[in-house]
Amino acid sequence: MIGHRVWAIPEGFIPGRSFSQQPELVSHEAACILNASDEPASVELTLYFEDREPAGPYKVEVEPRRTKHMRFNDLKDPERVPRDTSYSSVIRSNVPIVVQHTRLDSRDPHIALLSTLAYPVES
Amino acid sequence: MIGHRVWAIPEGFIPGRSFSQQPELVSHEAACILNASDEPASVELTLYFEDREPAGPYKVEVEPRRTKHMRFNDLKDPERVPRDTSYSSVIRSNVPIVVQHTRLDSRDPHIALLSTLAYPVES
Amino acid sequence: MIGHRVWAIPEGFIPGRSFSQQPELVSHEAACILNASDEPASVELTLYFEDREPAGPYKVEVEPRRTKHMRFNDLKDPERVPRDTSYSSVIRSNVPIVVQHTRLDSRDPHIALLSTLAYPVES
Amino acid sequence: MIGHRVWAIPEGFIPGRSFSQQPELVSHEAACILNASDEPASVELTLYFEDREPAGPYKVEVEPRRTKHMRFNDLKDPERVPRDTSYSSVIRSNVPIVVQHTRLDSRDPHIALLSTLAYPVES
Repeated sequence: MIGHRVWAIPEGFIPGRSFSQQPELVSHEAACILNASDEPASVELTLYFEDREPAGPYKVEVEPRRTKHMRFNDLKDPERVPRDTSYSSVIRSNVPIVVQHTRLDSRDPHIALLSTLAYPVES
Repeated sequence: MIGHRVWAIPEGFIPGRSFSQQPELVSHEAACILNASDEPASVELTLYFEDREPAGPYKVEVEPRRTKHMRFNDLKDPERVPRDTSYSSVIRSNVPIVVQHTRLDSRDPHIALLSTLAYPVES
Repeated sequence: MIGHRVWAIPEGFIPGRSFSQQPELVSHEAACILNASDEPASVELTLYFEDREPAGPYKVEVEPRRTKHMRFNDLKDPERVPRDTSYSSVIRSNVPIVVQHTRLDSRDPHIALLSTLAYPVES
Repeated sequence: MIGHRVWAIPEGFIPGRSFSQQPELVSHEAACILNASDEPASVELTLYFEDREPAGPYKVEVEPRRTKHMRFNDLKDPERVPRDTSYSSVIRSNVPIVVQHTRLDSRDPHIALLSTLAYPVES
């Protein structure tokens, strides 16, 4: 079994501007989720903010032996993720997964990138 | 309980120049702190330098179920964090938290970013 | 013994364009593999995608007391890694190794970098 | 006691060019070492390459309650670190330390950054 069932990403910030509207180059943050198991992963995200109660759960399915590069930009239900706003996320799955966090900042045409593994929570 | 009570970030360096004074785009370093617990987190930072004794403790509160993207730039008490100076930090909390480190370098208008999880200290 | 036998990298994306064809500056992703042991490491990679079954195993040898900065761009057998496509990877070795993930994005002449340690899978 | 005695950094690559010779902006890689203990840390580095036997040990001292942002560029004894060459490093200390890896790439005036925690080796 590869991974953990609970992960946390303390950093979160989607820049509100993008020099390009090409999907690849829009400013975005992603949680890259690997489900290397043979069962579907039912994943739930909760978002934490600086000045209000958490939002969620957001529900995401990751099929067996698949990856999903889930953009926080695309989350809509129960609510859109605000831009230019600091947040954190906690990710819970019914089967072990592995999670990596990335941001592409394209406020300027010369993009900047960051990435780190998420934090695997002991259970 | 999500996280650890003690974290370390070996890297620290706030560039002394910024092409813009917009808060989002000023050169800065941050410790993004997630307190997913239901109790307030009383957090204390100690800063380590290359050529003198540590500074601190700096005190930060993070409310229950909240994140705080704390900029090292904004620390003032007991003393300001010097710019263009190498430092490290140790972060202690009374409740478990999760910590991620980021730098935005805007000495040039085409910014650069870095990020990593902090190091969770066994206790 | 330094390292783990199994590692996972949830993020994977090789940009399909590069402003330069110089090997150093072509857009690429790498798994930097350290084999600090005194035995050869037989390494096998499996790639996971968003919409089809995994590809692999890809076989890589890392000699004793050597590093290999293996570019995903160069993998050809059993198949080439598609560009502009999200993937993840799992890396298995017969001896302990340490793995770090990097991307150099040179779609623009002003390159962007990201890096993180891979996730060491408990065994 | 904060940290581990042995750390590994699989990635290593010092770009051979820099748009500026200002110390802050020269292309470089660093191991940021935090010694939060009350004893001096005697640190030894070994460098691993793709096509020859390891180099080292390189010796570095980190005073009690100090950080050292050690540039691989500055290592000279037993030999200089070659530029434009892939390497890895293993870092051993007599007391627990914490290690983070960074690269600043200034081949272009619009710099790129990467960083990650090093890998704490179980002992």
